[in-house]
This record gives sequence, structure tokens and C-alpha cells, in this order.
Amino acid sequence: MARLDKVKGTRDLLPEEMAKRRWVFERIREVFEGFNFQEVLTPTFEYTELFKLRSGEEVVKQLYAFQDKGGRDISLRPDMTSSVARLYVNRFQNAPKPIKWYYIANMFRYEEPQSGRYREFWQAGVELIGSDRVEADAEVIALFTQSYLAVGLEDFTVNIGDRILLDEFAKMLGVEDDIGLMRLIDKKDKMSREEFVGALREFGLNDDGVEKVLSLIEIKGLPDEVLPKAEELFTSEEAKAEIKRLYELVDLLDAYGVSKWVRIDLGIARGFDYYTSVVFEAIAPNDLGIGSIGGGGRYDNLIEVFGGKPTPATGFAIGIERLIPILEWKGLLPEIKLRPDVYVIPIGDDREVKKTAIEITQGLREATVRADIELTGRKLRKALDYAGKLGVPYVVLVGKKDLEAGKVTLRDMKSGEQKSIEKERAVEEILNILGV
Amino acid sequence: MARLDKVKGTRDLLPEEMAKRRWVFERIREVFEGFNFQEVLTPTFEYTELFKLRSGEEVVKQLYAFQDKGGRDISLRPDMTSSVARLYVNRFQNAPKPIKWYYIANMFRYEEPQSGRYREFWQAGVELIGSDRVEADAEVIALFTQSYLAVGLEDFTVNIGDRILLDEFAKMLGVEDDIGLMRLIDKKDKMSREEFVGALREFGLNDDGVEKVLSLIEIKGLPDEVLPKAEELFTSEEAKAEIKRLYELVDLLDAYGVSKWVRIDLGIARGFDYYTSVVFEAIAPNDLGIGSIGGGGRYDNLIEVFGGKPTPATGFAIGIERLIPILEWKGLLPEIKLRPDVYVIPIGDDREVKKTAIEITQGLREATVRADIELTGRKLRKALDYAGKLGVPYVVLVGKKDLEAGKVTLRDMKSGEQKSIEKERAVEEILNILGV
Repeated sequence: MARLDKVKGTRDLLPEEMAKRRWVFERIREVFEGFNFQEVLTPTFEYTELFKLRSGEEVVKQLYAFQDKGGRDISLRPDMTSSVARLYVNRFQNAPKPIKWYYIANMFRYEEPQSGRYREFWQAGVELIGSDRVEADAEVIALFTQSYLAVGLEDFTVNIGDRILLDEFAKMLGVEDDIGLMRLIDKKDKMSREEFVGALREFGLNDDGVEKVLSLIEIKGLPDEVLPKAEELFTSEEAKAEIKRLYELVDLLDAYGVSKWVRIDLGIARGFDYYTSVVFEAIAPNDLGIGSIGGGGRYDNLIEVFGGKPTPATGFAIGIERLIPILEWKGLLPEIKLRPDVYVIPIGDDREVKKTAIEITQGLREATVRADIELTGRKLRKALDYAGKLGVPYVVLVGKKDLEAGKVTLRDMKSGEQKSIEKERAVEEILNILGV
Repeated sequence: MARLDKVKGTRDLLPEEMAKRRWVFERIREVFEGFNFQEVLTPTFEYTELFKLRSGEEVVKQLYAFQDKGGRDISLRPDMTSSVARLYVNRFQNAPKPIKWYYIANMFRYEEPQSGRYREFWQAGVELIGSDRVEADAEVIALFTQSYLAVGLEDFTVNIGDRILLDEFAKMLGVEDDIGLMRLIDKKDKMSREEFVGALREFGLNDDGVEKVLSLIEIKGLPDEVLPKAEELFTSEEAKAEIKRLYELVDLLDAYGVSKWVRIDLGIARGFDYYTSVVFEAIAPNDLGIGSIGGGGRYDNLIEVFGGKPTPATGFAIGIERLIPILEWKGLLPEIKLRPDVYVIPIGDDREVKKTAIEITQGLREATVRADIELTGRKLRKALDYAGKLGVPYVVLVGKKDLEAGKVTLRDMKSGEQKSIEKERAVEEILNILGV
């Protein structure tokens, strides 16, 4: 029988990885709940139609789409926003607003695997439904920033762009295929400057147009420094109003205490068919080839697309498979202790010996000591080898002769010292030694 | 645009349900880790072949099987044991034994939805790989029992059966289709006694055979009372040895302190093609139509079936969608507080007002008070209505005039009393009032 492996693009998470991941989840969860977001979880699959309605072309191409045994066209979720918006439309349209939900869940996209990219991956994210105000954008972007701070990351920026300005920009250039232009601008970082200029010309821009695009993507940096440039570049009323909104957003983010991490980058589009105004993403410099570690934005049309009353919304998702390698690389993840503190070895096959070993193990476990018991019936030497390999600090030996004298043996694995202790006081003595 | 709903047999988990579920997960996780099991997570889908190799016919019929865009035949996992055994074969055959892994994860089966049964459901389970000893069975069954105790359940039994005895029983009756017989016995609780006897005759048993089956399924109750009956019924050496093993198991479980919940039930088969000796399941009496709330057993052949060296293993899974309704019904789940403790309302559109409201909110959040801020720009009365609906105990009102005097207003929502407090000392005062 050939050995079966896991499916390409997926991976197994082993105990140490899981423990670190759980630590990251819990830190992020604390911040999310501190901002009064509440956890929801939708099904892993939805009708494929839902994702087609919502998502950009690329996401639909990447769907794990199939028919269930009842002939339903379903797909594994490629992100959570569609599902959460669907849940809102189904059951929460009449609930008090705003709704603040968070999730920590797995998503699926059929993409070419690469650094920090798997076909099954996890996101921690929030959706804030029912406010069109800049205050809501500020709350969400502040939370986004604080989520990274909560896991110890400090060297990152949250870069804010704006879809309204990109739309206005396309109009200004007389470009009809505004989505095509955004798509091109979105890919600028994957090309050299020459390639980018070439692509812009091929797209149909003249010298003036190319120059304007190059000015646009230069609007990137500290808000106070670059927003005035935006005011120069844009002339329409709509654009002016949106720039004013960005000023206000930046001002509120200052009150949240997160200005240090906030940048403006008008070259950010983040997908194409989905966001309606403010968009943002987090970037942490790294040598791992990992780009954005999360992003989000305002999506004021999606709920209507799903058949709900028009309802504004904003949210973000943090890419866990992007974030964790960077935390690991920076040494920001905690040391994980997986071994037990005490290992109890019954010697031989005597029934009383075995039962005493169990009782001591359970006594320690009840006192919340991580205690384990030898379960394979192997010889003492092999059992001690096993405890040594695991790095267990203390071993309790339960033998028949000792036991007849009411004793068991405690072995300090570091020093090799052994000590006979009263069976009845064994748990207590070990707790003392461990300082529990 | 028609409203889209979730897919049949799945469900949305809302904040209160999620909070309760998380409480259950964390209690179970603590016990699992106390027994030194370590968390792993495998991909949501595997090659379909894996599940076909492992699973009983019924599970294969219920697979969510499909092709990915690369033409791979894959399926959503119907349980975790196959995936964990696959992981073991891929990467852990040479690791120190035993391996003790746990998981808390979602599974998928295309079954007819009913009480406590969904097409996507969660299990918390463990696998102990690398010991064929009864000590390993005892450790796993003790942990199984303590997991239910950890969530406050006390009115339940853990019923232990044995596949070796069922095999011996089939031999004793001269039945060649031993799996067919087990399948029939497994379904006994879904039929009246008459129907069951009829089904046995139809299966081909004579009077003596039927009587023996009826004796077998009577071997059900406290170990001390029913194991002697088993000794009478069975005559083969293999059966005698296995009964001796059950006596030893029961004795070790006594040392674990879980005897009170342990029963023998030789009529339990739990699936057909998978377990090799001890099997067990937990039953909690309820009015909800919910049967087994979890189960497991020893599977000494599976790893070899997956191409590994022959390696004994044992484990269990707790059905979360079975367990939670019973805990709910018994009132064992904790009260969940979802509302914020403080709601901060900026009055009007003044920039300083908004920024002060944010600063107070953030000050409270940093002190781990669950504080929220009005984000919709609605009128004061509506904002207070919202806070009232949520049951928020305290509201902070930030108004322009107050602020010019360095003040904000704290409103006790229960009494309606309002109090002017210094803006600079607002966080501190609120912490005092909340007793934080």
C-alpha cells in the first residue's frame, strides 16, 4: 500500500506550531473583544453563487467549487466577508446597529503555493456593519493596528488608500476601464519602474497620463506630508471631499494612539469589485518574501448585492500564515513547553503498582501539574530514556518492593539523584519540589 | 436579487453560542492538556482515497467528495482519525512513543440533518498512538470520562464494548457475515424487541442463535455484575483472554477514580471496519432525542492500512453538537455577558468631542474594561436607546460645552442618575465605580 500524503498546498500543524498559533489567536481575540467585537462562525461552505456575487474575478477562479450529493453548487469559503454579510442579510437586518462581529477561521483558495501562502489558510478578522461614518473606519483601523501590537509586532505600517480617489483618478485620465487601471496600479510593486511605465502605455495612457499615475503612486508616506500632494493632484469636488475625510480619519487615528504606524498610500487598490472607499493593508518589512500581512476596507454595496437593504460596512482580515512566520523570524513568539513536568513509571506488571502509579499521576493532574504516565509496558531503562528524550525534569518510579514498604522513588532527571518518599505523601512532596 | 441562505444542514454560530462553545472547548482543552495530550490540526480535506481505505461503507457514502482544479480527488474530512493516522505515517513513525495528540476541529458528513446532527459538526478528540496495553485504553477512557465532568456533566455513563468478543460471538454462532451481524446488533436500539428478533431470524439465525444474541445484549450494566455473565456466555480461549483484559481495564479505571460512570455493554459495535477490540461510547439521558455524545476505541490495524509499520492506537471523539444541547438543557453552561460595561457617546460633530470620546474609550479598554463607542453619528436619544437595548450599565456623554469646562458626564443607566466628572480623571473614576 503506497503511503498517502497530505494534499498539495495544505499542511499539518504540529503541537509546537499549534501552541504558538493558539497564543497568537488568543492575543488577537483579547483585542477584538476589548473593542467589543463578538465572535461568529459561519459554515465552511456556502452556495457558490454567494461568492460569485461578491468576489473579484480572481477569487472566483480560485474557488474550491463542487456539487454536494444533493446536487447543490457549493464552495469552500475563500474569505469570511461574504458569509458574514449573508448572515447579516438573513437574520440581522432589524438588529440594533452597528453590529460588530469577529471571526478566527480557515479559508480556501486554489492558488499556487508560495512563501506564506497555502491553499487552506487562517484569518482573524472583524466586520463592522451599519455605520457609514469615518468614526467606524477609524475604530476598525485602530483595532487592526492594535492587533499586530498585541502579538508584539512593532515594525510595521498600516497603509491607507482610497477607492473613491482611484475612481476619480481614472475619470481624470479619461480612462473608461477604471478597474483595469486599478488592477495595473495594484500590481506596480511586482514590476520594475520601466515595466510599469511600459504596461501603462500598453494600457493606452499618453505621456501626461503616465506622469499622473507616477505622481499618484508617489502619494505614499506620512499623512501630513503626502495628503497635501493629493490635494494638488485631484481637482474634482468628490475627490476633495474624500481627501477631507482622509484628514479626519488620520486625526481620529491620532486620538486612538496609533498614528505612529499609519501611512497614506494612494496606490493601494486591494482587489477590484468589492471595496467602495477607504482601503488599507499592513506591511511588516521582512526577508521572507512576505508582502501584506492583512488588510481591509469599507464595502458599502455588498449587503445590497446580497439582497439586503443598503447598509454600509467596513472590516479587515489578518493573514495568520503571513503573520506567524514574521513573528517567528523576529523571535516574538513565546517559548512553548510541551513536555510533562513529571513522568510516572510503574515497574513491572503488578496490579497494585499500576494502580498506585495512576493514583499519583491523577493526584498531580488534579493539582494542575502536567503529569504523564508510562503506558507502553516497556522496560525501566527504555522508559527512562523516553523521559530523558522529552526533557522531563522529574520521574516517579513505582516498584513492588518499595510499595510494600509504603514508598515510591522520586528521581531528579537532571542530577540523577533519587529519593525515597512516602507513597501517601508523594503528590504533596512533588508539589513542594515543583513549587506549585 | 433573491436572498441567499446558508446551505442545508449547516448553521451559523452567533455570538452567544460561540461564547458558550468556546467555554466548552477550553474546559475540554484543559483536561486534554492535563493528560499531556498535545494539539495538532490537519488539513480540512484529504485525498478521498484515504477515507475510503479507513472508513466504513456508510461514511464513504456520506463523504463530501469532489475534484479540485488540479483534478485531485479530495474529500472534506468526515472525522479526524484518518488524517491523524496519515500524519503519523508521513512524519512520526520514528518519533518516541507513545504519541498523544488531541484536536478540536470540524468534520463533514452528508447525512440527513436531525436533532444534534449537522452536515458540518465539531469534535474534540484524542489519539494515543504506539501502545497496545490496557493501560493506554484506561488512560484514554479515563480522559474521556473526565472531559464530560470538566464541563459539569455528571449524569452520564461510559459504556464499554469489545469487538473481539463480538467477533468471537459471531464465530460461536457459526455466522460468516460477522460484520452484518454487528451491524444488526448496533441497530438494536432503533427497533422494538419483536422487530429485532425478526431481523435476527431474517439474517439467518435459528432459535438458539437468537437466544444467544438476546443474552449478549443483556450483558449490559455494572462491570462486577455483568462480566461474570460474559464469562458464562463465552467459551473460547480468545474470548476468555479478552474478558480478563476487560476486568483489568475496569480495575485501572477504578484507580483513575471514574468507576462511577463506567458500564459494560457488549452490544456496542460502533461502526464496522475500524475498531479492533475495546470500543466505548458516552450516553447522557436527555429529552432531546440525542443518543451517543461521543465514543472511541482501539484501532490497531489502521496505521498499517495506511502504509505504516503495524502500530497499535486508541482514541475517542466527543460530539460537540451532541454535548452542547444537553449542557444547555441541563443549565450547565455559564451565563454569557456580551454587552459592553461602558458606552461612550460623543455628542455632535465637533472634532475635539470625538477625539476625547475615543481617548476615554481607549483608556478604559487599556484597563481591560469592555468599553464601546458610538460610531453611527446618530442623535443622543437614539444612542441612549441603543445602550439601553444592550443593557449597558454606564454611559459616558462627551459634549462640547462640558468639554470646554474640562468635564464629561457619566450616566448610570439603571438609575438614570447623571454626574459630571473631570475629563482628565474620567477613566480613573469609572474604574473605581466598576470596582476594577
